[in-house]
Amino acid sequence: MADAITRREQDYSQWYIDVVRAAKLADYSPVRGCMIIRPNGMALWENMQRVLDGMFKDTGHVNAYFPIFIPQSFLEKEAAHVAGFAKECAIVTHSRLMDDGHGGLMLDPDSRLEENLIIRPTSETIIWDAYGKWIQSWRDLPLLINQWANVVRWEMRTRMFLRTTEFLWQEGHTAHATKQEALDETRLMLDIYAEFAETYMAMPVIKGEKTADERFPGAVQTLSMEAMMQDRKALQTGTSHFLGQNFSRAQDMSFQNQEGEEEFCWTTSWGVSTRLVGALIMTHSDDDGLVLPPRLAPKHVVILPICRSDEDRSSVLPYCESLQKELASQPFADGHVKVMIDDRDLRGGEKNWYHIKRGVPLRVEVGPKDIAKNGVFVGRRDTGEKSPFSREDFVANIGKTLDEIQDNLYARAKKLREDNSRSIDNLDEFEAFFTPKNPQKPEIHAGFASCFFVEDPSMLQLLKKLKVTVRCIPLSDRQEEGTCIFSGKPTTQRGIFAKAY
Amino acid sequence: MADAITRREQDYSQWYIDVVRAAKLADYSPVRGCMIIRPNGMALWENMQRVLDGMFKDTGHVNAYFPIFIPQSFLEKEAAHVAGFAKECAIVTHSRLMDDGHGGLMLDPDSRLEENLIIRPTSETIIWDAYGKWIQSWRDLPLLINQWANVVRWEMRTRMFLRTTEFLWQEGHTAHATKQEALDETRLMLDIYAEFAETYMAMPVIKGEKTADERFPGAVQTLSMEAMMQDRKALQTGTSHFLGQNFSRAQDMSFQNQEGEEEFCWTTSWGVSTRLVGALIMTHSDDDGLVLPPRLAPKHVVILPICRSDEDRSSVLPYCESLQKELASQPFADGHVKVMIDDRDLRGGEKNWYHIKRGVPLRVEVGPKDIAKNGVFVGRRDTGEKSPFSREDFVANIGKTLDEIQDNLYARAKKLREDNSRSIDNLDEFEAFFTPKNPQKPEIHAGFASCFFVEDPSMLQLLKKLKVTVRCIPLSDRQEEGTCIFSGKPTTQRGIFAKAY
Repeated sequence: MADAITRREQDYSQWYIDVVRAAKLADYSPVRGCMIIRPNGMALWENMQRVLDGMFKDTGHVNAYFPIFIPQSFLEKEAAHVAGFAKECAIVTHSRLMDDGHGGLMLDPDSRLEENLIIRPTSETIIWDAYGKWIQSWRDLPLLINQWANVVRWEMRTRMFLRTTEFLWQEGHTAHATKQEALDETRLMLDIYAEFAETYMAMPVIKGEKTADERFPGAVQTLSMEAMMQDRKALQTGTSHFLGQNFSRAQDMSFQNQEGEEEFCWTTSWGVSTRLVGALIMTHSDDDGLVLPPRLAPKHVVILPICRSDEDRSSVLPYCESLQKELASQPFADGHVKVMIDDRDLRGGEKNWYHIKRGVPLRVEVGPKDIAKNGVFVGRRDTGEKSPFSREDFVANIGKTLDEIQDNLYARAKKLREDNSRSIDNLDEFEAFFTPKNPQKPEIHAGFASCFFVEDPSMLQLLKKLKVTVRCIPLSDRQEEGTCIFSGKPTTQRGIFAKAY
Repeated sequence: MADAITRREQDYSQWYIDVVRAAKLADYSPVRGCMIIRPNGMALWENMQRVLDGMFKDTGHVNAYFPIFIPQSFLEKEAAHVAGFAKECAIVTHSRLMDDGHGGLMLDPDSRLEENLIIRPTSETIIWDAYGKWIQSWRDLPLLINQWANVVRWEMRTRMFLRTTEFLWQEGHTAHATKQEALDETRLMLDIYAEFAETYMAMPVIKGEKTADERFPGAVQTLSMEAMMQDRKALQTGTSHFLGQNFSRAQDMSFQNQEGEEEFCWTTSWGVSTRLVGALIMTHSDDDGLVLPPRLAPKHVVILPICRSDEDRSSVLPYCESLQKELASQPFADGHVKVMIDDRDLRGGEKNWYHIKRGVPLRVEVGPKDIAKNGVFVGRRDTGEKSPFSREDFVANIGKTLDEIQDNLYARAKKLREDNSRSIDNLDEFEAFFTPKNPQKPEIHAGFASCFFVEDPSMLQLLKKLKVTVRCIPLSDRQEEGTCIFSGKPTTQRGIFAKAY
């Protein structure tokens, strides 16, 4: 069967690819490392964009658009940034093709650009060059700009949505008059991301600070949110960076303060990407395919008319249409219930599977027998439950049912994380936790380990061997006295350690 | 004064640049030919996107996203398409930078790509390569996909929004089982564009068909909408192409029809771009700066508190806030009235000019004297009228007033077009119409000439001399007998001739 889905336990990586393919979310492209986001996948990203964009605007941000090309010399300005970003990228060197004399095309050597142009891997340098011109005095601050754009990083190992050469994202870049304001902004945006993740994606996240090793190149502080996928690996799903005056110094971005003195701006940047779609898939989907939280599902309900004859059709279809209308008038979240009818001429089982694989939260079968009882037969995607309801009850409770599904998905994901998280206080336990029982075949194992630690080169070798990283130092943790499990040094900080994407 | 605006009569091109700059819509970038769309300009494009995206979805289209990179070999597949597009473009040849040993960066020669990648100038080739895999049978048709994206064409002469190396656009690409369906789609999308232009942009357009010379490379039929700018030049503001089976043949995109036979798909493509923002600016703005139609204006009303003392402030500000609340609860178009208060500490004149240049439809001044009368003092951007109103009347009629402004802008633009359009039946008149009185300095002249013509090389030399093109053959014209003014041949078609952007 073309759309068969590998079980998670059997091969989690293959399961993910199968779910993406069966739900027609994305496809490979003829360009190495790039994917095609198909309409079903794009609908998810569009829903995410709409909600996030509203949250950004509600907190005073505006959108702009900056060129996709970064002159090579711009990348050379900020040393740490170069080291982190400038190396693996797409480089434009020519601006013209010419006939090659054999019916094909070739580079026109006369079109060699004077300066190489880099397809943005991120836009700090070009955006702050503009800010430098726009900002003269404290009156021009804060500058709170976001951009929705495509970016390119020449990745060697790609995975649909999670890591691709080209991807879609938003990048916020803000400039402030004071350090405190910039720190507050950094935290505000992390909080917005986390609220979005938990409330809309039904994905529990841990908010934390990155260690120096894992910081964004050029940042003073990097905050991130980390989620546990069903293979118990961590996925970094959003970051917010406090950049201090590093970039403003490198790009000479100063302003006149209220006392008339020139000062460098304090800046932040923050972003989430189409990786969130990958996170959504991996958090909720099961061995039958995609599972979607209602708040981001393009459709909440699909009505499946069951007609064995033309006579059936003439009574069943009008019933379905009036049911659709009734359901669609019910409020849910910030809008109404979104309902479609699938009246294609397919067998009932085939049609049910079609929508199961696409993750529609509720499937409603309506046949002559249901109509006779003024009832509906409802399949719930999250639990797999199938039960009859009176039409009246189903319609009246539809908003509540969708809320229940949303809450159930969140609770399920949170339980998975809790069941696979533990405090670990010694190295033996740490090694055992992160070592699969059977190293011969892929095996879901490990999880999140919370450990006292001091950031120190001594721990890197062991972490590398185990393929484990410090995901973050949770912001919610209270400080307590402890001992670094790697070095034995005293410390007050715990980190979340995990294998990660 | 930094934001002074050249008069249109004096130098129309400079006027346009001044309006864009004074309203902070866009800025030059350090990358040749690329612009930065600033938040004020982006807000306009976002409003356009939101409305158009809704219209596309209401007619059954869905969004997707395809890679920005087109392998060079793809461009070689469709001969006419190559000739039209493949030459001036941004070409990626390398994927890595390395230290140059002098603190800078250089191309890593080992990273030379096996095949050059072209930044999409348009996505036909890569999209139809995917469609070829997705479409097997008539059941997969029609395929109605749109993409919002950035594209790059290496333009030599650029003008902000109207023609830039990188620009933002949407490109629809549809595949159909029959010729008629594809023809209908081509026309439907043109109609949607025209409805958007007239209803939202308040910009009258002529819907027509392009002559063979002006067709999209590879198209069988190109429909376009053409608008007259205030310098009486034509601006092509949207196109919809019927591609026949040209691309499906070139890319082997076939399907099994209901009779079980393999057939090539019938395809269309259609697009509008950030050029629409340029069209909006040039259609309505005046010598004072930007003028915005209310249906696309980010804010409809700005309230300007007039306070000469702290005591004033304490009474005026609460009055303004309650007025804002009242106004914002009034319905307009598909939402509510959008109102802001500008309580910055600036002189009244300066503040008024600030919003005049940004095109806010209504400015409302509120000072202690107005409050004493429970009144407001209103400035209308489109007419320049300033008059007192009772608060009650102003609030009650706000939606009507905004509709009036929208209608007035449309009527004014239509009158400009009518006043500068004429039927021309002989060559002398044609030449006189398109020749400025004083060729020594820029002069607004000419307009739209409707002439009988036969598409024939004989007319090209004269047109080239006059810098005139056939914009389109209007779809609304009834066929009548006439004589080509260039060749004397009998014909039944009239074309719109104009100088154009």
